[in-house]
Amino acid sequence: MALKTRATEALGIEHPIVQAPMAGGPTTPELVAAVSNAGGLGSLGAAYLSPETLREQVKEIRDLTERPFGVNLFVPSPFEVEPERIQRANALLERYRKELGIEAPEELSSFAESFEDQLEVVLEERVPVFSFTYGSLEPELVARLKENGATVVGTATTVREGLRLEEDGVDMVVAQGSEAGGHRGTFLGDIRDALIGTMALVPQMVDTLSVPVLASGGIMDGRGLAAALVLGAEAAQMGTAFLASEESGAHSEFKRAVLEAAEDETAVTRAFSGRAARAIKNRFLVEVGEHEEELPPFPVQNALTKDVRAAAQRQDHAEFMSLWAGQAVRLASPTNAAELVESVVEGAEAALRDLAPRPM
Amino acid sequence: MALKTRATEALGIEHPIVQAPMAGGPTTPELVAAVSNAGGLGSLGAAYLSPETLREQVKEIRDLTERPFGVNLFVPSPFEVEPERIQRANALLERYRKELGIEAPEELSSFAESFEDQLEVVLEERVPVFSFTYGSLEPELVARLKENGATVVGTATTVREGLRLEEDGVDMVVAQGSEAGGHRGTFLGDIRDALIGTMALVPQMVDTLSVPVLASGGIMDGRGLAAALVLGAEAAQMGTAFLASEESGAHSEFKRAVLEAAEDETAVTRAFSGRAARAIKNRFLVEVGEHEEELPPFPVQNALTKDVRAAAQRQDHAEFMSLWAGQAVRLASPTNAAELVESVVEGAEAALRDLAPRPM
Repeated sequence: MALKTRATEALGIEHPIVQAPMAGGPTTPELVAAVSNAGGLGSLGAAYLSPETLREQVKEIRDLTERPFGVNLFVPSPFEVEPERIQRANALLERYRKELGIEAPEELSSFAESFEDQLEVVLEERVPVFSFTYGSLEPELVARLKENGATVVGTATTVREGLRLEEDGVDMVVAQGSEAGGHRGTFLGDIRDALIGTMALVPQMVDTLSVPVLASGGIMDGRGLAAALVLGAEAAQMGTAFLASEESGAHSEFKRAVLEAAEDETAVTRAFSGRAARAIKNRFLVEVGEHEEELPPFPVQNALTKDVRAAAQRQDHAEFMSLWAGQAVRLASPTNAAELVESVVEGAEAALRDLAPRPM
Repeated sequence: MALKTRATEALGIEHPIVQAPMAGGPTTPELVAAVSNAGGLGSLGAAYLSPETLREQVKEIRDLTERPFGVNLFVPSPFEVEPERIQRANALLERYRKELGIEAPEELSSFAESFEDQLEVVLEERVPVFSFTYGSLEPELVARLKENGATVVGTATTVREGLRLEEDGVDMVVAQGSEAGGHRGTFLGDIRDALIGTMALVPQMVDTLSVPVLASGGIMDGRGLAAALVLGAEAAQMGTAFLASEESGAHSEFKRAVLEAAEDETAVTRAFSGRAARAIKNRFLVEVGEHEEELPPFPVQNALTKDVRAAAQRQDHAEFMSLWAGQAVRLASPTNAAELVESVVEGAEAALRDLAPRPM
């Protein structure tokens, strides 16, 4: 028995489960390959990887699985570098550097990896599934990726964004509900207007788009997958559910936080990266969040907080880590990728079987 | 064929569909009775009704249906009356009164109807289902309502609130997701932490509570009902879906706004009532919302804006009405209650049938 959809067919996977690309550590090649080997789609969150590391990790994934997998990048958008904002942000970071016993780094020469160079690796390596977050890609670029053999997946937080992605030629669209952990994919309009719950977003997206819609946000188990499918989605993208898995590269204190948090203990914040993202509340989020309006934009703030977050990891200090997680975090459990995929599929089938109308 | 659950049994209804109590006009006795006659549970949003009007409307409902129906009240919580805040709020309202050509009313002698007197009517009239919003009720009061024959339903926006309601003895709990239109039922903790999407909230609530959970927020059609059920809810509570129905008492301009709005055109605001509630954005919401921190609490702000909202209704001026609606508002359609209930049930059955695993 399998839950087949246009999306599973186009992605070449057995089960309608996509492991969300989670940049910054959790999506190790081991996790990506394990999910793909289990019949889902593993995805590498590669936004912060250098082109060299990205290439290495793609090779590692290929050593571990022959099945399709995805790579996700952040599409860059123009940003301003205002020395005053940077100064103020660094002043805010001082107390954390002091507590962690680290010095402020030298002035930064760049704030992010080159998207063009990362994309070149994706093309050269003929990555089977390419997904992107933040904005649309030039239709010519989408066409080039598709000609190169990739299935191209965009991320939308509103119907308008979904339509734009479809016009640009993507093969499918991830509908990112407000429950989702990590960065909000919003690229049109005000972020505050684009926090639409998954239950509301998915059917409205499905009714408007022609391409398959993947549901994300708040989906943690078979019940969530079944709900996504009856809403009209053709697969579920799940992040938080994989965070505490064995293969996840999330720090052990990050995993612990995920396993202990409740549904009302996350918040959407710009504190860590300069871009709105949902994380479990900790000291850094709450304290720096109070100055949210003053912070520099992504990727500047992300680059500025990098040393603090790295030191927090080295020192097992969860209060200063970016603990990205979604609102269904109570449902997280320690598991491994294969077990999780299997239990989600079985749970979805059971949920649907239990409720299905009997023939009269 | 029917989708039977513990909730449909306890409520004495055929279909797991509760029409949300929407105080302030939409839930006419005609709407309530039509939903109940169609096999769902109609609910009167009675929070703003005088005890006399409440009694009359209950009698009207009983003239129109012999089936069970619900009445909803707001549980009062202590509030401060600060003359300075009232003065500032009135100053903010001046421009709208001017545009509408109305005078500021005399100083208000009371801000809300008496909950005790309203509740007395509920008890005397032996209302079959009593639901309440904002907080918990004394266990003794819950017991008294139950002994009197009522099924008692509380409203929770977090798991912690659901647990409290269960401890107080309610028969079932409405899990109000962040998508929901109208007032947020939050009564413990910070409202900003309690905007949990329905997809995330329902399974976490179901896993923690023993009593049946009703899903609300973003559910507009059969797909939404089916999703709610597979998530473990035992019925769906739907408000926005009924707003534009024939029997709804919503103003024609309110109905028009509901039929025209998109999913990213609502916001949670204290502008109209002093309490956080989701409405379609209009001039009043945006302009007064800029001063949200200064506004007096519910029910003071609600009482202060009453004349403005009433004049806006008389003058068909949607920009100054409280256009309560949820995030799945794109899915609203002009319909009647019986048609809507039937199409939701048929849609849910079809969605479940299409996806149900075939016996192997």
